[in-house]
Amino acid sequence: MRAVDLIRKKRDGAELTPEEVAWIVARYTAAEVGDDQMAAFAMAVFFRGMGGPELAALTGAMMASGDVIDLSSVRGVKVDKHSTGGVGDKISICLAPLVAACGVPVPMISGRGLGHTGGTLDKLSAIPGFSVDLDAARFIAQVREHGIALIGQTERLVPADRKLYALRDVTATIESIPMISASIMSKKLAEGIDALVLDVKVGSGAFMKTLEDARALAKTMISIGERMGKRVRALLTDMDRVLGRAVGNANETWEAIEVLRGGGPSDVVELTVELGAEMLILGRVAESLEDGKTRIRRAIADGRGLERLARCVEAQGGDPRALEARDRLPTARRSKEVALGVGGTIERFDTEAVGRAGMLLGAGRERSSDRINLSVGIEMMVAPGDRIGPDQPIARLDYDDDDRFDRAAAALRSALVIGEGPAPARPLIFARLGGEA
Amino acid sequence: MRAVDLIRKKRDGAELTPEEVAWIVARYTAAEVGDDQMAAFAMAVFFRGMGGPELAALTGAMMASGDVIDLSSVRGVKVDKHSTGGVGDKISICLAPLVAACGVPVPMISGRGLGHTGGTLDKLSAIPGFSVDLDAARFIAQVREHGIALIGQTERLVPADRKLYALRDVTATIESIPMISASIMSKKLAEGIDALVLDVKVGSGAFMKTLEDARALAKTMISIGERMGKRVRALLTDMDRVLGRAVGNANETWEAIEVLRGGGPSDVVELTVELGAEMLILGRVAESLEDGKTRIRRAIADGRGLERLARCVEAQGGDPRALEARDRLPTARRSKEVALGVGGTIERFDTEAVGRAGMLLGAGRERSSDRINLSVGIEMMVAPGDRIGPDQPIARLDYDDDDRFDRAAAALRSALVIGEGPAPARPLIFARLGGEA
Repeated sequence: MRAVDLIRKKRDGAELTPEEVAWIVARYTAAEVGDDQMAAFAMAVFFRGMGGPELAALTGAMMASGDVIDLSSVRGVKVDKHSTGGVGDKISICLAPLVAACGVPVPMISGRGLGHTGGTLDKLSAIPGFSVDLDAARFIAQVREHGIALIGQTERLVPADRKLYALRDVTATIESIPMISASIMSKKLAEGIDALVLDVKVGSGAFMKTLEDARALAKTMISIGERMGKRVRALLTDMDRVLGRAVGNANETWEAIEVLRGGGPSDVVELTVELGAEMLILGRVAESLEDGKTRIRRAIADGRGLERLARCVEAQGGDPRALEARDRLPTARRSKEVALGVGGTIERFDTEAVGRAGMLLGAGRERSSDRINLSVGIEMMVAPGDRIGPDQPIARLDYDDDDRFDRAAAALRSALVIGEGPAPARPLIFARLGGEA
Repeated sequence: MRAVDLIRKKRDGAELTPEEVAWIVARYTAAEVGDDQMAAFAMAVFFRGMGGPELAALTGAMMASGDVIDLSSVRGVKVDKHSTGGVGDKISICLAPLVAACGVPVPMISGRGLGHTGGTLDKLSAIPGFSVDLDAARFIAQVREHGIALIGQTERLVPADRKLYALRDVTATIESIPMISASIMSKKLAEGIDALVLDVKVGSGAFMKTLEDARALAKTMISIGERMGKRVRALLTDMDRVLGRAVGNANETWEAIEVLRGGGPSDVVELTVELGAEMLILGRVAESLEDGKTRIRRAIADGRGLERLARCVEAQGGDPRALEARDRLPTARRSKEVALGVGGTIERFDTEAVGRAGMLLGAGRERSSDRINLSVGIEMMVAPGDRIGPDQPIARLDYDDDDRFDRAAAALRSALVIGEGPAPARPLIFARLGGEA
């Protein structure tokens, strides 16, 4: 087999055999096929797409490029959730302990934030002492004992994806639904899960800007999962809004804790309940969506979710007292409210710009090597549809540095689109996709 | 400027500015943009093509990546010819001295053969002592003194093309008309010429299999030339045949010498006269095609073409007596005729297979690092349209090695398509393209 022939075949629109796909991924991971050939292949895939068997083979080959965690010693149906990323998305932090508390083991491997989107690992790092660097043995043991572990990617998992993603990043081949799908699914399947709920974000703050693209991505990932014997369901959810009010790290973690304490913004609660119900169905604990939602709500109300997060925090070296009071999490030195200067109705958010404002404040990374400040963040005080006056505060910024405040405030002001009429109502959940529950 | 943004722009179908094109070529040549990014860019160009200004900028940037020969000290309009490559194409060897003899300076830089196509440099190397490795100063001086020089590419000319071609070769991005055009034209324009005649081959032995593709390639190259202030004309000529009878190196050189001596196969003579007339028109020596043809024929008849080649050979260290007798050129040890074993009418040649037979005999290279045997070759004894008997020889093979003979003979037999009816007549010249002469 020669890489150039496989590139030509894909370039000319043919489907590669599973053997051919496995060959090129394995050779690339072993550095026997170079970045030049893989870049040309990726660009050919960008233009030609990939068929179902081809894509399952790509996902399988990437998954098999490193260790695959064996969770067979954990009883029950292991279910994880993956979000394609947005602004203010702290759902994992309240969702995982609630689902675990309802009896479904959640082995969750998350990522760091980049650009305008935050990352669950960064948010969790705001909990004093909490370690996200567990090896596979400890990860498995903790899922077995507590039904939940929240960790970061290890070097040994899916090296092909790390290598290929870095290449795609510099060769303008990120924006390919087949390759995005294979990247996400290979990482999730390497966790050793049985089933997966996808939260595919759509809107100005999401990677997928249109419902059509989001639906295509969801369908592709569901199809990969099914071909690999895993049950996958997907919710398409709104990212033309900030999810909840908090954008940052410590403040987002606290907002998720508030949900577990029975409070929190209604959209964060709603999405947690909906995604949790789907996970309970896949985990064979709930019989219906209604049953699932009731179970999640009960685990909030009686404090079992909070208690489960406390166990997880303690097991991973963190201070569970951080779940009791906001001031046990990192806190910024200063706070100031920001007004828009003009009045009107907020027609919509450029949610990506809100995320960028958070990044400028120091809460996010422009490059993956950047250091972030866990204590700073934005607290949104308005929502799309609100009628505001010119001096009415739109958000509170918690900050350490005046320069950063100024840049973040300017970005935030530019993120609000003001009009005269009422804002069109957008649902939180656009669609549910996926096979039998 | 960032390479990833330029790749994305091209990927999404936009035209790059001339500055952007110049930037990426210069950075790639300097190894500041890597093979990975350039491979993705090349694949994006494969799918999206390039517009006129973009392509002129690409050609100009590649040309400017190395030295550009300054022929301003040579009087007259300097004209070269380029063939896109075929089987039995020895035209340059008789054409260049004839045109020079008619008063138009010909600064010709040629290439080596690869795969089924031969190369002028290899054929010229069959002349004892002849050196094709002249530096720019000697090249210029020889064109000034003798009106002709026949040399090979130097390291200092168009390094971007060498680097990019090698990359395209392993990334399945050779087959792109814009990139083929820029590659050819950058090399030709770096010679310092004023005008160029293109012989764009079409058919089974050519890179372009269809008239449509050949026409597109010719038009693209003409347009690049015009944008860069050079006059370019193109002939689309048949490569569903072997040009002349000889396929090899010494034998092809001798066939070209025969043309200069007033003999040679009629198609080789005809194409030489036609291309020569075009060059004389571009060189402002002939007033019309008829005038040009008459001048070329006269330079054959009175021996001025042969005399000019002798001067060129002598100036480049070769033995001009090689032009007097076939046995002063390398000669193979054995000769044997090959019959087909079945009778019928030759409907057509798979000309590429004939070229491959020559390569198997040792006359060509499978890889650019292969050594070739200058003395071996094929002498075709039939042509498309001929009616042959089963034992009638189709060709004579001059060879040194029995194994190679067997493989070449088998390839050659498979190259002839036999039918019952008469073969459709194909003209030698399909079309003439290009602006005012």
